[in-house]
Amino acid sequence: MDAINRYLDDHRERFLDDLKEVLRIPSVSAQPAHNANTRRCAEHLVDFLRKLGMKRAEVMDTAGHPVVYAEWLEAPGRPTVLVYGHYDVQPPDPLHLWTTPPFEPTVRDGKLYARGAVDDKGQVQMHLAAIEAHLRVSGRLPVNLKLLIEGEEEVGSVNLAEFIRAHRAMLDADVIVVSDTAMASPDQPALTYGLRGLLYGQIEVTGPARDLHSGHFGGAVANPANALCAIVAALKDGEGRITVPGFYDQVRSISGEDRESARSRPFDEAAFIGEAGAPAPFGERGFTTLERATLRPTLDVNGMWSGYIGDGEKTVLPSFAAAKVSMRLVPDQDPADLAPRFEAYVRKLAPAGVTVRVEHLRGTPPFLTAPDHPMLEAARRALDRVWSKPSVMIREGGSIPVMTIFQKTLDLPSILMGFGLDDDQVHAPNEKFSLTSFYGGMRSVACLYEEIAQG
Amino acid sequence: MDAINRYLDDHRERFLDDLKEVLRIPSVSAQPAHNANTRRCAEHLVDFLRKLGMKRAEVMDTAGHPVVYAEWLEAPGRPTVLVYGHYDVQPPDPLHLWTTPPFEPTVRDGKLYARGAVDDKGQVQMHLAAIEAHLRVSGRLPVNLKLLIEGEEEVGSVNLAEFIRAHRAMLDADVIVVSDTAMASPDQPALTYGLRGLLYGQIEVTGPARDLHSGHFGGAVANPANALCAIVAALKDGEGRITVPGFYDQVRSISGEDRESARSRPFDEAAFIGEAGAPAPFGERGFTTLERATLRPTLDVNGMWSGYIGDGEKTVLPSFAAAKVSMRLVPDQDPADLAPRFEAYVRKLAPAGVTVRVEHLRGTPPFLTAPDHPMLEAARRALDRVWSKPSVMIREGGSIPVMTIFQKTLDLPSILMGFGLDDDQVHAPNEKFSLTSFYGGMRSVACLYEEIAQG
Repeated sequence: MDAINRYLDDHRERFLDDLKEVLRIPSVSAQPAHNANTRRCAEHLVDFLRKLGMKRAEVMDTAGHPVVYAEWLEAPGRPTVLVYGHYDVQPPDPLHLWTTPPFEPTVRDGKLYARGAVDDKGQVQMHLAAIEAHLRVSGRLPVNLKLLIEGEEEVGSVNLAEFIRAHRAMLDADVIVVSDTAMASPDQPALTYGLRGLLYGQIEVTGPARDLHSGHFGGAVANPANALCAIVAALKDGEGRITVPGFYDQVRSISGEDRESARSRPFDEAAFIGEAGAPAPFGERGFTTLERATLRPTLDVNGMWSGYIGDGEKTVLPSFAAAKVSMRLVPDQDPADLAPRFEAYVRKLAPAGVTVRVEHLRGTPPFLTAPDHPMLEAARRALDRVWSKPSVMIREGGSIPVMTIFQKTLDLPSILMGFGLDDDQVHAPNEKFSLTSFYGGMRSVACLYEEIAQG
Repeated sequence: MDAINRYLDDHRERFLDDLKEVLRIPSVSAQPAHNANTRRCAEHLVDFLRKLGMKRAEVMDTAGHPVVYAEWLEAPGRPTVLVYGHYDVQPPDPLHLWTTPPFEPTVRDGKLYARGAVDDKGQVQMHLAAIEAHLRVSGRLPVNLKLLIEGEEEVGSVNLAEFIRAHRAMLDADVIVVSDTAMASPDQPALTYGLRGLLYGQIEVTGPARDLHSGHFGGAVANPANALCAIVAALKDGEGRITVPGFYDQVRSISGEDRESARSRPFDEAAFIGEAGAPAPFGERGFTTLERATLRPTLDVNGMWSGYIGDGEKTVLPSFAAAKVSMRLVPDQDPADLAPRFEAYVRKLAPAGVTVRVEHLRGTPPFLTAPDHPMLEAARRALDRVWSKPSVMIREGGSIPVMTIFQKTLDLPSILMGFGLDDDQVHAPNEKFSLTSFYGGMRSVACLYEEIAQG
């Protein structure tokens, strides 16, 4: 590996330039106005993969944003690794809070700032750098490699299940590798064996047919914004528990294994809350901050709007109010089961005088895999070769929609080896990727291919 | 009066053009971006009043938007009438719901559509047309007349109290006439003897210092949007009563006089609720729709915002949430007393993990006057001369900030004679003024000046 590592070191600047180039493309999958940019990002990656030496690289259409697929299968008898990543990014709003513009990647203080820097373009480019190093140094890869880089991860991978079912043979492999998770700390790597799922809906409340003068009609007709607040407030009780009937029925209690893993994980609560900039920890009674953030389900308003939101005052009784509300789910909660329960409960909570509609925006099941699988042993060996501190096994609070699809459709072991950090401002203004993570991640991935090859 | 009426009839088209000209000026007092337009509107009115023949007409500065003042005092021994109106308008948002643009006045089906058409530019222009008719036909007015047209009614007349105190002698009069209220129905005029007050605040809730990834931090830190919903929901109980401690202490119970006036008023509940486009009446238990809309206090969210409000989904835990909340007050509630109670209660309702700030945007006391004052008798006689149905005495749900200032500073009787209709979409998209009201209002006002002169 010394030659590989040297190659990775020698080309650091160019790897950074390659990443900046892809970060300049605003591939915001949630926003139709960016559809052309999202496709352009896929095409850019395919060009890049062809130049890299992948034997097949193409933009493959779906009913939504296209998938980038590439493969190098010239290691007969060796295991086949399916690397999954995504090239789409979250919306950059609110724009005014970015120090430098979200699509003009900028290095400050050893960190690269841009929307998508760590989630997930930077982590995809780590793999592409590792592939390049193997191919240039050895003329080959230590394993057979398939790359699946999708464009809809940030909108729930809505078309990927269909794509995977339709291309089951093409995607067949011995292990799935995903780099879209975080390290335990800046110098301690982690392997993720659990993820939360997601149920995301939009509650829309309509009162009067049009905005009214609050003096003429106020008091005599229901106000949809007040009604929305009543609904949202009733979704949790005073203990921080979610009140949707049956919501906790399938929640696994925290296992000894989970407690062991939590103990081995270096978690600094004060630093975590400080990173959030929150005045204090807050959440469900009876659980620690780490448990609340990774092992317990949540319900959060992600956005909310109604009436007049400009300067000063307007004495309007609004016609409409809406809230985007999402629930993080944990094993064995099933979004398909909970979505209709949530909708029925919201309708039941609605006061008279308004009409309520629930739009379901996403359902992603939670993910959990056995932490002692041999493929995870290989991953641990790879990380041990690169980092001075031993890796830890963690459950993360975020969601990767495709993991359950992979589990259900291809039934393969999964390695979630990511290099994000808690303060990476993922999904927020000033998203960044530490260059230490970027370069350490390349080395780790290059080693991972070798360790998998050695079985 | 025949000659006056004929003059008013003969010049209908030009009166309409005069009104359209003033409606084209977007004098939105709440929005600093429109400050130049607001001043331009005042200057336009002064030019107009000078051409009309008012003996003094000037733009008079305040700490905010200027006041237009004009006078004609050449009827010695006759009563002096102070006519109050406002040239500022509400913000036109949401713009996309207007059939024709808010500042391009358009007549459709006998109604003039524009922001400010009825509130209050159209009703001010009724007075200017009546003045013109008297001056052109008789060379004089039947009374001494002072005009006070302010530019901050829609933002709570924040500088008018100071202006009135500073110009007490200039504004001295025998009666105040205001045309900024409504008729009982399209063919039945009304005199308003009560108005609700207003307490308007903005609740601002801050959670984490920045927007967070709802997967990484969700469950472990307080969400300001959820907290805001909990606060707003707790401001009312299940009976529709406002829970601010002491809120109802000063509320007068409904009097026999009020019940009598309500009985004489032609009020069609189904039509009123239909006009609102609401699915059903809704409000405080134990009161009728008319009582809820005019005699009881309210609490309404006027606007609310937090987090991501674009297309699709963003899994963000927002840093900030805010709601504009206003309460209509009734005699003898005092906004100065209730504002600190409201703020203290909101702070008390705030859950741990967030910080809450309340910005007070406005306090307007409620207004109530004796319905049997001789000046109101004169007004009734004037209306009887113009309309076939007898006028009714009503209490309105809206607020006119200046009425209490007049009461306290000048201690004069007030005539609130307005010609709006319930479906005028005041403060909403597609605000309009019925031309029947506009022309009938001119005649009524012209008669009113005569009736006041006759004592």
